[in-house]
Amino acid sequence: MSGGFDLAPWELRWSGLAVDQLHRTESVFALSNGHVGLRGSLDEGEPVGLPGTYLNGFYEEHALPYAEAGYGYPEAGQTVVNVTDGKIIRLLVEDEPLDMRYGRALEHHRTLDFRTGVLTRETLWESPTGRRVRVRTQRLVSFTQRAVAAIRYEVEAVAGDAGGPEETQLVVQSDLLANEPIESRTRDPRVALALKSPLAGESSHCSGLRAVLVHQTKESGLRLAAGMDHEVEDLPGLRTEVSAEDDLARLTVAADIPVGGVLRLTKYLGYGWSSTRSGPALRAQVEAALAGALQTGWDGLLAEQRAFLDDFWAAADVEIDGDDELQQAVRLGLFHILQAGARGESRAIPGKGLTGPGYDGHAFWDTETFVLPVLTYTMPEAARDALRWRHATLPLAQERAAVLGKRGAAFPWRSINGKECSAYWPAGTAAFHVSADIADAVARYHAATLDTEFDREAGTELLVETARLWRSLGHHDPHDGFRLDGITGPDEYSAVVDNNIYTNLMAQKNLREAIAACERNPRVANRLEVSTTEIEEWSRAADRMRIPFDEMLGVHEQAEGFTAHEEWNFEGTEAEKYPLLLHYPYFELYRRQVVKQADLVLALHLRGDAFTLEQKARDFAYYEARTVRDSSLSAGTQSVVAAECGHLDLAYAYLAEAALTDLNDLHHNVANGLHMASLAGAWQAIVAGLGGMRDHGGELTFAPRLPSALERVAFRMCFQGSRLQVEITGEEATYRLISGDPVHTSHHGSPVVVDGEVTLPIPAPPDFPTPSAPPGREPRRRTKAGDSGTQEP
Amino acid sequence: MSGGFDLAPWELRWSGLAVDQLHRTESVFALSNGHVGLRGSLDEGEPVGLPGTYLNGFYEEHALPYAEAGYGYPEAGQTVVNVTDGKIIRLLVEDEPLDMRYGRALEHHRTLDFRTGVLTRETLWESPTGRRVRVRTQRLVSFTQRAVAAIRYEVEAVAGDAGGPEETQLVVQSDLLANEPIESRTRDPRVALALKSPLAGESSHCSGLRAVLVHQTKESGLRLAAGMDHEVEDLPGLRTEVSAEDDLARLTVAADIPVGGVLRLTKYLGYGWSSTRSGPALRAQVEAALAGALQTGWDGLLAEQRAFLDDFWAAADVEIDGDDELQQAVRLGLFHILQAGARGESRAIPGKGLTGPGYDGHAFWDTETFVLPVLTYTMPEAARDALRWRHATLPLAQERAAVLGKRGAAFPWRSINGKECSAYWPAGTAAFHVSADIADAVARYHAATLDTEFDREAGTELLVETARLWRSLGHHDPHDGFRLDGITGPDEYSAVVDNNIYTNLMAQKNLREAIAACERNPRVANRLEVSTTEIEEWSRAADRMRIPFDEMLGVHEQAEGFTAHEEWNFEGTEAEKYPLLLHYPYFELYRRQVVKQADLVLALHLRGDAFTLEQKARDFAYYEARTVRDSSLSAGTQSVVAAECGHLDLAYAYLAEAALTDLNDLHHNVANGLHMASLAGAWQAIVAGLGGMRDHGGELTFAPRLPSALERVAFRMCFQGSRLQVEITGEEATYRLISGDPVHTSHHGSPVVVDGEVTLPIPAPPDFPTPSAPPGREPRRRTKAGDSGTQEP
Repeated sequence: MSGGFDLAPWELRWSGLAVDQLHRTESVFALSNGHVGLRGSLDEGEPVGLPGTYLNGFYEEHALPYAEAGYGYPEAGQTVVNVTDGKIIRLLVEDEPLDMRYGRALEHHRTLDFRTGVLTRETLWESPTGRRVRVRTQRLVSFTQRAVAAIRYEVEAVAGDAGGPEETQLVVQSDLLANEPIESRTRDPRVALALKSPLAGESSHCSGLRAVLVHQTKESGLRLAAGMDHEVEDLPGLRTEVSAEDDLARLTVAADIPVGGVLRLTKYLGYGWSSTRSGPALRAQVEAALAGALQTGWDGLLAEQRAFLDDFWAAADVEIDGDDELQQAVRLGLFHILQAGARGESRAIPGKGLTGPGYDGHAFWDTETFVLPVLTYTMPEAARDALRWRHATLPLAQERAAVLGKRGAAFPWRSINGKECSAYWPAGTAAFHVSADIADAVARYHAATLDTEFDREAGTELLVETARLWRSLGHHDPHDGFRLDGITGPDEYSAVVDNNIYTNLMAQKNLREAIAACERNPRVANRLEVSTTEIEEWSRAADRMRIPFDEMLGVHEQAEGFTAHEEWNFEGTEAEKYPLLLHYPYFELYRRQVVKQADLVLALHLRGDAFTLEQKARDFAYYEARTVRDSSLSAGTQSVVAAECGHLDLAYAYLAEAALTDLNDLHHNVANGLHMASLAGAWQAIVAGLGGMRDHGGELTFAPRLPSALERVAFRMCFQGSRLQVEITGEEATYRLISGDPVHTSHHGSPVVVDGEVTLPIPAPPDFPTPSAPPGREPRRRTKAGDSGTQEP
Repeated sequence: MSGGFDLAPWELRWSGLAVDQLHRTESVFALSNGHVGLRGSLDEGEPVGLPGTYLNGFYEEHALPYAEAGYGYPEAGQTVVNVTDGKIIRLLVEDEPLDMRYGRALEHHRTLDFRTGVLTRETLWESPTGRRVRVRTQRLVSFTQRAVAAIRYEVEAVAGDAGGPEETQLVVQSDLLANEPIESRTRDPRVALALKSPLAGESSHCSGLRAVLVHQTKESGLRLAAGMDHEVEDLPGLRTEVSAEDDLARLTVAADIPVGGVLRLTKYLGYGWSSTRSGPALRAQVEAALAGALQTGWDGLLAEQRAFLDDFWAAADVEIDGDDELQQAVRLGLFHILQAGARGESRAIPGKGLTGPGYDGHAFWDTETFVLPVLTYTMPEAARDALRWRHATLPLAQERAAVLGKRGAAFPWRSINGKECSAYWPAGTAAFHVSADIADAVARYHAATLDTEFDREAGTELLVETARLWRSLGHHDPHDGFRLDGITGPDEYSAVVDNNIYTNLMAQKNLREAIAACERNPRVANRLEVSTTEIEEWSRAADRMRIPFDEMLGVHEQAEGFTAHEEWNFEGTEAEKYPLLLHYPYFELYRRQVVKQADLVLALHLRGDAFTLEQKARDFAYYEARTVRDSSLSAGTQSVVAAECGHLDLAYAYLAEAALTDLNDLHHNVANGLHMASLAGAWQAIVAGLGGMRDHGGELTFAPRLPSALERVAFRMCFQGSRLQVEITGEEATYRLISGDPVHTSHHGSPVVVDGEVTLPIPAPPDFPTPSAPPGREPRRRTKAGDSGTQEP
């Protein structure tokens, strides 16, 4: 068992109902293709933790309130909308609604299969009056037909213990339900109001077994069509009826079923939305999607789904021998990352994917820094699409930079449509590193794919415009070089600091990558009016970039002056005071040496080329002792750097924490959706941590090492059109070319050309003293597989 | 003329109506005794700029909205309420309402007399139908009877050009009007709603010529009674009628007046409010106040007012020969400071006094740092009362400190009742210096009065509790001593910085003053559980206090790292971009070397004992070049330090700017009330600037010097029960004991005992190069008296 789920390498199963855990299972069982997302609610709609049906990019707008406003504060917020719910299929057994809170559930399992991409539910239920039915449903959101989801719904009349009558009357109601009642999660009455009943009905249609509802949001003016069509297996005396009103469309199917008889229907869902297209056009688009889905049919959709996933796993699978719980968690994570990114296409990948309304459905830097590296090396076209979305929002980012008095592009800290929505500027606007993170993802994608078309059409422009931001944000100071003052780094327990080392190093890389891109694409550079002077300025700024270092302590400073700040009193901080931000004011967090999440340590990973190994070990130890991991963005990175410094058991502990964050609900908020970046962090902990994979300067290198508890780890990845597998045991590593051209890489510093298969010995790890986390905040050590999984962190 | 007002040494007169200037004249002509405040609106209520009747401490509460809230953010805001308006006396001339926008105003003057404390209005008006009346009104808010205001209203029927009928029918309506319609000044709909109609009627009463209205606020639950009573001079055929409903009480007086006849009435107003007392109790209190006022009578009130003011001017007058405009402005300023503080008693002195709704009626650090020094040396009992208010709010400040995880008392950045109301913590909560400013005011008051009772009852506790705050806010760091990190100093274009030099130096003084107070009052210290260890800790923290200094530039840093920040591009900043905060985001202001208001320069004044003169001159020049004076809190301080450094013409320019801030509406917001701190800054510029008065360590010293444009400056002040006058000319200074014991002081460093009169020569000023303000932000040079007054800054 892991967090209440059965252990299995390729699936996740939950047995029993557990009403109080529904919010968790709904998130973990969410299905999505990056365009449409359905939370894993029960078919019958209730009981429910938090209902949710999402369309990527579909949001409502609301005014952001400020008691004391300031120049340049964003005026409008965006919140993902729970759209028309098409998942609902209600069942009445002899007039008794199937509600798992009543009667008896004799059996009840839900299973998510990572290879078929199908969520299956099997329930044997006895109604309060003793009637028994077996309900089996399968649900998928198609990876191949992005507007389509489908549900196979089967209900069988089952003989009760006492026998019973020969026939059971079953009524199935298959709904499209808009403006589903939902408990408000916000304290702001205006936001709550905006989201209470966000959709205004525009038209409703039904005929045959099909219905379509068209709605529009009230403020953001986005239009949505949701459609359903059905196949119902014929039965004697079966009656069907379809109806549609503003917020509800329904197919009702009624039949009298003998014991052993099965009522079976397939529900096809089609979704479409647009900010510009008309209601009739959207309706037509949805009806076309439904027609396509019907044409493919249920079995066809299943087959396409399987084939899509087979290909994904062939490129991306991670195998872990010696820790079944971790094996399952890592595959679940990859599956959800795929779901978040596969078909996002021209839209963002939100921090929660489409698994819940957390963070208002916004996308953050997490996507570029944590999620895109996974996609870049496993499904590069999804990484490309995500970066194309950023490129599409460039005019908004340029506008934002101009409002801030800067050149180039300032990408938003949080957004759905590309406009800044952060209402707290010290941790929003000032966190400029998001622009360097995007540049970093662009450079990584380019090096890993050599996609010259993207480079010309989008990549170079993204690099140039972000480089321009850095040049205009910073200044040369006679005291100590090129400075970036008054900005906020990744650590959310610091803000508005001078020379955050992570930001400065990422900006340095950004500037240099922009120069390289301009050299690769002189015509693009010319179009963007990049002058020789500008290139020289970028180069000089990068070369003179200030990197704060505390000579007395011999460690780098997270930002100027950080190491002179007061230490946090960890001994005096009780366990229930975490996360600290809920119990201490920002002012107190900001002024002390307490770190929410990897910041300088993230620089040790992503800009590892700027540090010696000895310095990394010193810096890691210093910051490890001050990092409380109140963010899910931390453990994966700490794992990576711990592994590099030879702290393999620690790396393993952090890897498990990252991988199990959502399964074990370590942050007590999985109800609002999964932490995509944490799931991605687990992949990083395996590939960059245990595998020692780095891509500094576009070169792929490995330095694999396993903790003693693991017998074998193997992962696959794509690089420049080739696919390779790296297989690691305690003693040696095997590099295997699966397809494509030979891959030039290195193993622990020695060049290797992978063509076929090559096995190399693993050197002993460096021997630095093991660092300590703050008292009470140590990761749970994982000495034997599964030890920690089912316990509280 | 100065800003449209006639020049005169002891009064301020505005001639003509100028509807578009009403908002200004209402603020400048506001009458107050610190308890009741009446804006200088026309008697007939309309036309009006911004109506306003205020009771010190009477506010409505509203939720503070946060799009992204944080731990410890204040939840409720407070806003001063425009209470029941008793100023209104309407006149109908043959059914034609006197409205200055219609008909013709043949004469119209309004005059505020600084010696009588009376606002007089004289109007000769011809109605649209050609009837003429002369209206003469006098208004006062009593300094001696704090709940009382009074209006003498006289209207005379005057023959028109064309003669006219023998009698004119006059109807006078004297009102109490609650929930006066008022234009909303807020963008927050919830605040606007709270203030739209803030008062709920509780009861209304009338009999004879008297009426009382009792109201309660809806959220804050404060209760208010407003009453009026009248004396009407009998006339043949005079009819009177009184009525009262929820929001309106009215005395109607009607008479037919022959040409030359006068209808004369006196209106007495009584106000009372309470958070605990009942409606009947408040009504009784107000009726008692009215009875007292009637007993004193109009002439008696006038006489009391005059006597009170005679005494004030005897202790506080400032004479300026050579600049009539400045003479008038400085007396006006002193009059308004007196009005703000005279009878505040157990309440705060708001930033705008009771002259307008600006800053929501909140009190800030301005009071202690700018206003209280004036009161301490001119009307020490008012300074004492203001500090007693702070002492009364100590439990709230202790509570706030506890919420912030600190010991001692953290006084609010802005408040009416003592609870923190600042919704933007970087410029609110983090501006901890307010607590040191209060301590500074306590220490100053003590040294200037030797008021041992206050010292025992309130002063020592205030010093101890603020010292405790500093000790728990700071920490000893091996790098560089005792640090105060992540706080905000006075300059609002910086925030959340390390070791703001002003804050550190003021905290240092606070710690030392607390030690001294404990030594003076061992029993109080004992009661407050001050241990020897604690005293040692305070002493060590003060001794090791970090004072950041830039060795390369040879200047102090406003805060750690300030001098490495990017310079502001003043040449590229157009005049209309000021104040910068309305045109640039905070993030940009915070990260650059641009200073809104004296910060380090304020430390050069208040902690001048911590700098050599040479260092002051260097520091002043450096910060002068970077200070834009977007705050009205700056010019006075710049004047003081400029004078000390020998830049006498510059000091004179800043003195004039401070003094004329409101008369000339330099900040374009005098509509919302006067800038008390700026008016006080002008006094400081004279006394501490030209007079060179300092009180470091409780010792009173002088170092007077005049700019060449001024012939003579004389000011009076109180010190330890004595009154003295300092008279300065270009060559010499005369110290004169007016009353009390001899005063021990010094003149330019040489000890002097002032007993009788002593005249001493003035040495030549030091010869440092004259510093420059940022291009475009230079103060208007004042070479000849009155040169700048009537022009734009």
